[in-house]
Amino acid sequence: MTTTLITGGTVVNTTGRVEADVLIDGETIVGVLPPGSELLGSDLKRTVDQIVDATGKYVLPGGVDAHTHMEMPFGGTFASDTFETGTRAAAYGGTTTIIDFITQYPDQRVLDQYNLWHEKAAGNCAIDYGFHQILSDIQPESLTAMDELVDEGVTSFKLFMAYKGVFLSDDGQIFRAFQKGAENGALMMMHAENGSVIDVLVEQALGRGETGPINHGLTRPWQLEEEATHRAIMLADVADCPLYFVHVTAKQAAMQIAEARGRGANVFGETCPQYLYFSLEDQLGAHSAERGEFEGAKWVASPPLRSKHEGHQDFLWKALRTNEIQMVSTDHCPFCMKEQKELGADDFSKIPNGFGTVEHRLDLLYQGVVDGKITLERFVEITSTTPARMFGLYGKKGVIQPGADGDIVVYDPNGHTTISADTAHMDIDYSAWEGFEIDGKVDTVVSRGKIVVQNDQYLGRKGDGQYLKRGTSQYLT
Amino acid sequence: MTTTLITGGTVVNTTGRVEADVLIDGETIVGVLPPGSELLGSDLKRTVDQIVDATGKYVLPGGVDAHTHMEMPFGGTFASDTFETGTRAAAYGGTTTIIDFITQYPDQRVLDQYNLWHEKAAGNCAIDYGFHQILSDIQPESLTAMDELVDEGVTSFKLFMAYKGVFLSDDGQIFRAFQKGAENGALMMMHAENGSVIDVLVEQALGRGETGPINHGLTRPWQLEEEATHRAIMLADVADCPLYFVHVTAKQAAMQIAEARGRGANVFGETCPQYLYFSLEDQLGAHSAERGEFEGAKWVASPPLRSKHEGHQDFLWKALRTNEIQMVSTDHCPFCMKEQKELGADDFSKIPNGFGTVEHRLDLLYQGVVDGKITLERFVEITSTTPARMFGLYGKKGVIQPGADGDIVVYDPNGHTTISADTAHMDIDYSAWEGFEIDGKVDTVVSRGKIVVQNDQYLGRKGDGQYLKRGTSQYLT
Amino acid sequence: MTTTLITGGTVVNTTGRVEADVLIDGETIVGVLPPGSELLGSDLKRTVDQIVDATGKYVLPGGVDAHTHMEMPFGGTFASDTFETGTRAAAYGGTTTIIDFITQYPDQRVLDQYNLWHEKAAGNCAIDYGFHQILSDIQPESLTAMDELVDEGVTSFKLFMAYKGVFLSDDGQIFRAFQKGAENGALMMMHAENGSVIDVLVEQALGRGETGPINHGLTRPWQLEEEATHRAIMLADVADCPLYFVHVTAKQAAMQIAEARGRGANVFGETCPQYLYFSLEDQLGAHSAERGEFEGAKWVASPPLRSKHEGHQDFLWKALRTNEIQMVSTDHCPFCMKEQKELGADDFSKIPNGFGTVEHRLDLLYQGVVDGKITLERFVEITSTTPARMFGLYGKKGVIQPGADGDIVVYDPNGHTTISADTAHMDIDYSAWEGFEIDGKVDTVVSRGKIVVQNDQYLGRKGDGQYLKRGTSQYLT
Amino acid sequence: MTTTLITGGTVVNTTGRVEADVLIDGETIVGVLPPGSELLGSDLKRTVDQIVDATGKYVLPGGVDAHTHMEMPFGGTFASDTFETGTRAAAYGGTTTIIDFITQYPDQRVLDQYNLWHEKAAGNCAIDYGFHQILSDIQPESLTAMDELVDEGVTSFKLFMAYKGVFLSDDGQIFRAFQKGAENGALMMMHAENGSVIDVLVEQALGRGETGPINHGLTRPWQLEEEATHRAIMLADVADCPLYFVHVTAKQAAMQIAEARGRGANVFGETCPQYLYFSLEDQLGAHSAERGEFEGAKWVASPPLRSKHEGHQDFLWKALRTNEIQMVSTDHCPFCMKEQKELGADDFSKIPNGFGTVEHRLDLLYQGVVDGKITLERFVEITSTTPARMFGLYGKKGVIQPGADGDIVVYDPNGHTTISADTAHMDIDYSAWEGFEIDGKVDTVVSRGKIVVQNDQYLGRKGDGQYLKRGTSQYLT
Repeated sequence: MTTTLITGGTVVNTTGRVEADVLIDGETIVGVLPPGSELLGSDLKRTVDQIVDATGKYVLPGGVDAHTHMEMPFGGTFASDTFETGTRAAAYGGTTTIIDFITQYPDQRVLDQYNLWHEKAAGNCAIDYGFHQILSDIQPESLTAMDELVDEGVTSFKLFMAYKGVFLSDDGQIFRAFQKGAENGALMMMHAENGSVIDVLVEQALGRGETGPINHGLTRPWQLEEEATHRAIMLADVADCPLYFVHVTAKQAAMQIAEARGRGANVFGETCPQYLYFSLEDQLGAHSAERGEFEGAKWVASPPLRSKHEGHQDFLWKALRTNEIQMVSTDHCPFCMKEQKELGADDFSKIPNGFGTVEHRLDLLYQGVVDGKITLERFVEITSTTPARMFGLYGKKGVIQPGADGDIVVYDPNGHTTISADTAHMDIDYSAWEGFEIDGKVDTVVSRGKIVVQNDQYLGRKGDGQYLKRGTSQYLT
Repeated sequence: MTTTLITGGTVVNTTGRVEADVLIDGETIVGVLPPGSELLGSDLKRTVDQIVDATGKYVLPGGVDAHTHMEMPFGGTFASDTFETGTRAAAYGGTTTIIDFITQYPDQRVLDQYNLWHEKAAGNCAIDYGFHQILSDIQPESLTAMDELVDEGVTSFKLFMAYKGVFLSDDGQIFRAFQKGAENGALMMMHAENGSVIDVLVEQALGRGETGPINHGLTRPWQLEEEATHRAIMLADVADCPLYFVHVTAKQAAMQIAEARGRGANVFGETCPQYLYFSLEDQLGAHSAERGEFEGAKWVASPPLRSKHEGHQDFLWKALRTNEIQMVSTDHCPFCMKEQKELGADDFSKIPNGFGTVEHRLDLLYQGVVDGKITLERFVEITSTTPARMFGLYGKKGVIQPGADGDIVVYDPNGHTTISADTAHMDIDYSAWEGFEIDGKVDTVVSRGKIVVQNDQYLGRKGDGQYLKRGTSQYLT
Repeated sequence: MTTTLITGGTVVNTTGRVEADVLIDGETIVGVLPPGSELLGSDLKRTVDQIVDATGKYVLPGGVDAHTHMEMPFGGTFASDTFETGTRAAAYGGTTTIIDFITQYPDQRVLDQYNLWHEKAAGNCAIDYGFHQILSDIQPESLTAMDELVDEGVTSFKLFMAYKGVFLSDDGQIFRAFQKGAENGALMMMHAENGSVIDVLVEQALGRGETGPINHGLTRPWQLEEEATHRAIMLADVADCPLYFVHVTAKQAAMQIAEARGRGANVFGETCPQYLYFSLEDQLGAHSAERGEFEGAKWVASPPLRSKHEGHQDFLWKALRTNEIQMVSTDHCPFCMKEQKELGADDFSKIPNGFGTVEHRLDLLYQGVVDGKITLERFVEITSTTPARMFGLYGKKGVIQPGADGDIVVYDPNGHTTISADTAHMDIDYSAWEGFEIDGKVDTVVSRGKIVVQNDQYLGRKGDGQYLKRGTSQYLT
Repeated sequence: MTTTLITGGTVVNTTGRVEADVLIDGETIVGVLPPGSELLGSDLKRTVDQIVDATGKYVLPGGVDAHTHMEMPFGGTFASDTFETGTRAAAYGGTTTIIDFITQYPDQRVLDQYNLWHEKAAGNCAIDYGFHQILSDIQPESLTAMDELVDEGVTSFKLFMAYKGVFLSDDGQIFRAFQKGAENGALMMMHAENGSVIDVLVEQALGRGETGPINHGLTRPWQLEEEATHRAIMLADVADCPLYFVHVTAKQAAMQIAEARGRGANVFGETCPQYLYFSLEDQLGAHSAERGEFEGAKWVASPPLRSKHEGHQDFLWKALRTNEIQMVSTDHCPFCMKEQKELGADDFSKIPNGFGTVEHRLDLLYQGVVDGKITLERFVEITSTTPARMFGLYGKKGVIQPGADGDIVVYDPNGHTTISADTAHMDIDYSAWEGFEIDGKVDTVVSRGKIVVQNDQYLGRKGDGQYLKRGTSQYLT
């Protein structure tokens, strides 16, 4: 068993920072110690197998990305990152845990899909992984399966208010699932957009010959996210279950969440880097002479990018600061332009939805620290501590303290990172983030006591990552 | 042509009161004159055919009840008042105009129903009447019919977010109708309850053997009205159409409406006397030794009565005062206990929904004036002026001014009214309002220049009332 | 006694419009009649002495301007309009009633000032006039005088939260006056700005050598208006008295008022044309090459113009539409540039505060109708009906109905008005409104049955106007 | 130097709990270690001087009480606890740090008072202590002193909006102090009540012969706290300084704070146990046959207890849960009934204001955990972590981590505490908390590595406590 000492750095947890050494015995943190502690005596020195010099750097708990879609089947193709490529890219970016969504379509059995996801992931992951379960067009059998899955460590379930015939459940179905969640302690997750109205708007836009990527956003106005958010909150209020909103993009949706929490409800929300940094105007402006209007397809995701002049992006940064939004995930769901995004060349509604971001989340949020938008401690909270607490991993993940897994990112505030498809490790043929400059850099990544990334080299092996049987949410108050 | 002078009273319009005589020439008001005006000369005196002495009384514009369901087919039976009995009862109560809902079920054609309603009403009404059109499970043909109906003076359309398989339209259907309303100027009306979730709650309650009338209310919590209200507001926001909520019962729903108006949206709401005066606790307490729990069936309507301790009733009075709620209609939809309400003896969900109130609206609201909850002018506004403006009748109805129809109620503030099924004129075998005491009394009712009620006698004939081809809403700003 | 018939026009009251003739007998409206009514018989025709042809025009109740400062002593000079010049200008602009503020300074007795104001106005006014009383640095004697003044028809009292040593009362003094108002039924009026903090900001700006007019606005940020507004609302809540805010300029202050009304409080607000049309940016941009920075002095008033990019102007129009703000007055308080505004050439804090607007209020608000911001009926409400109801003049002023004073404006929607100091009739050497174009025109003005303006000619005499002994507010609910 | 091992317990920090041992070397925590860690080797065992067995108990960071008034001069007497008796009582209750208020009256120099407070505290305290500075009737010299005090570790300043002639500063004075705070990084603290209006209400109540203690509350309605809270927030907004409200009692005041934070402002609030547990109705009901109405004097503090039926208490618990209120202090300011509270026997306004609570804060809040109102982690946060972060002590106080001071409370969830004046250690002749039962108990208290309380025995000495030179707030985001 290897013993690792991370020495000379500033350990940053959610509640503060301290100059300290971190001692990892095998896979587990066993001590947070005063720098160069003499107390431990000469015996210790003999037992330390590897030393990571973190002088002048931050020592952070490994990132927890609670929203990924590796190899997700969607619209006749698959998200381009496998568990192997996606988790390796995550490791490069300082994320040491992902929680991926098991996808169920209406004609599939929930438990079959659960088993299938284990098959896909087992032996392939660079970092630890857990699962959420997607429930589509919820049937009684799915409700029964929820209990079994909670026992298996899948303690969160995502429902959809959009994508009719694919993912959508109607309000009665959603309500029954909420009731089940209220019983078994699972955290219910929601994709909140009013798909029924969106379908009308999409049909009308296509009918008018408006087929380009920008129409994706124009047919999904913020009102339909705000509406669905409010609706789900009220249904959860009747069912008396906690509720978590994935990928909040609209200021008004965030305000609904904040208001619910203000009256004491257990309602939470995540946003994603793309909604903090990009706008509908950016997407419109992305047209290039060579690629033409279709260049905008790179930024097609659901919910869509929001208009800058309506102030959504600024509001979301503010909401992260004031805890109106609790955390940041990536909704990593990459599709290549070639052969994938191109499926929608003549019909924006056929463009596979999604971004590749799992590698850049920590860098992009750290830049928020540099820019004065959030504190360093809050950065740790929204990228690691809260995701771990929210999804039943706390104590093991999300914190640097004895007993926790040895998941550590040494982050260099004096380093620099330029994001590019050329240098990134995700399996996708473009980067939505091309040219972004980050005033910081991932230096060393340790996963359960093993150094997996150092000097920009991947030192791990596929299969290092283990399945995380999660408990129920520890964030609920 | 008869000339009528209403003399000696206090004329009350929405914006103030004045001591004045009202001169009606034939069917139309031609003058509002200083009391005992000498100016008009001796010639006039010869021409006045009938004089109504209103000394010490209020002279009000005739009531406009914008929400009735005469002979409405529902759950295998019909609302017990015909156009004949219902409009005569309305006249007794000082209401000189009703707007009734043409009912469409999914298998019926909208225009057929429009014609059918004309057949039912023509030649039978004691007072003037207009129509709204109900649209169920909205299909393209119904959308087309909307334009035709607007030309026919049916300028408002009611949609339902509840009653699946009967009335309910899904959000996409609703949105298409809203778009049509935005085009043709019609006012969209909404029954706002989340029927999809209610259906689950009802099924679950019945499954637990909870079959009594009180479960009607318990399975329709306020959250599901608030939710649907918010949802409709957001859909109307995207469609850019005005929106009117029928029978608002929940404080929180009223707050959603107020908030929308606060940001400048054309969103309006009515409430009904039953939601101002009755509570769920009243319904529960209505059990009598003889009738047992089923006595509560008398107060079954949708949305249901709300809990007193949650403060809905007080809030609605406040909202009427501050114009957060704009007006009061009855949702008159009477069903007898015998053979009608009894259909739900073993299953609350089979109790026909509705109250008989068309005769008592003015009295019940006037009591609000006596109790200091609203001013006399506001009473006129919410029972007559606003309904007329809201539904395209203003200038003819809702005001005492030259050019308006000669619809007048002489109301005696020194009179007294005791409500009872024994003395009321509606065709229903009980009164939900039994024993209510009102510190005022309808004295004389004039409809288009004809005295139809005086000394508690009905002096009119069926067929006096005429169809009102309505214009579009005059309340929109 | 002259009898006047205004014929052929569209009579517009707050609740609607009707084609009708208006018959005025002497000073009082005696009939609103169908156009060309034959009913009245041949006798009448003989008695009509003058006929005003209003064909194609609007017949409006005369304007009521509830906020003027004629000959007001301020900062060592006097507002440049006397009662004679100011009321004549008002008449030209369609205003037939003003309510002027009796000014009291700390060393003056309230009742002395009341008498002085009668002396100034008596025999000099072109139109009817009432008085509000300003109370400065409120002392026990002033509280006693409040009762006497209410008996004299001065039923509203203005207090100040700014201008220390001049007008300001501290919170305890204000509270005592509020208690008195709660007793005697008077309406309390408030100038809401936190003068104590403004004084610090002004001192600091001058200390930094920032002496130009624009600093007037920069040292009175909206937060200090919002704060004072909220404070006064809470004090009124404890004292249980109604409260009226003069010259609301800030969006956030309007929101405080709306919120108070939303919870049922009797809290009201006026805004002024200058706050609807002008911004701080306009003032800054007003610098001309010849006049330099001091040109901005033309727009110095308190509260100051607000920043356009903060959206105050748009919000105020919206608030007028939704009745979050109840009415529009001018705060007419003109000072010439020469010898008056110039007093502050080296120190913005010495620029006399105020605009000359009494002549243009109706035109400027009518333009809001043309621009689709308010309806014609709402225009009548905010310029005439509500001011009359708010300040105890209703029935006599603010409405065209029998018994009301014969105060009528015939307004031509096909006319055109260009505002200029050259053509205006106020006694001031510039116009803040220079070059404004109005798509409408005052055609004829009738004051208590006398035609005072027609064909741009003044046909009245000084002294036509009478003192109005006002009752208490009729707007309270 | 003593080495201490606290073993077998559950270490609870704000972000979670872990089974761990805590190793304290001298005065400082040097390790948080897996239970029974073998890693440390045999050498360590020799060096541990004392072992605290925490098996089955919680190991918490020592409590930080940020609001005490030891020996405070007030109304001609002194708060009855000296630094010696008060800090010893605090230690008994698990509080290992207090921040006491240096009192300044208008005729005193700030720096003199600072020195005086050092004299009072030095050598007398059982636990560590810091100081806030009260600024009364703020003068330029006081503003200058603020900079010097920040350098001395007094980084927070309390102002008053009440107590005219004693503590009150007017808005201009407050604003200047806020500007200074914005410059030097100090945290401004506010006693928010509108004293000017309270003075009127008190005078009027006394004038009516209403002299008993209950009138203290009746003359300080919540509106006057809400108002002052809002006012201070707006002034801080203009000055751009952070702001902290002491002793928030009213729901509406808490909502103002929450709203300000919602828009991103650095505005914070504390409440006190008395406002969570007691109501005005309790005070009224406290009259006993023997003591009569004056018994209520025991609960006289400012702001006063609030009415139960208005829901303040429930709201404050909710606000603690949702972080609308950030922390809980005691406002410990004890006065004996005899000779102290009795000063107001004939005049409630002369009753010295205050409660004795410093000993019971942890117990009273822990009961909130037992009652399901807050989580155990949140209990730690509001009683220790946040007070430390808020007032510049974090890293040393408020957390169990290496480098922090060895301030530890071992708390026994299976113990029981009955509060009584007979058993409490504060120097006061009654207990407002008499008879309160707590389902938990302070077991052992360690202050900078020294066991000061164990087995209900005080093991420390006066003078153990040291002065804490505080940094600026670490809570600001």
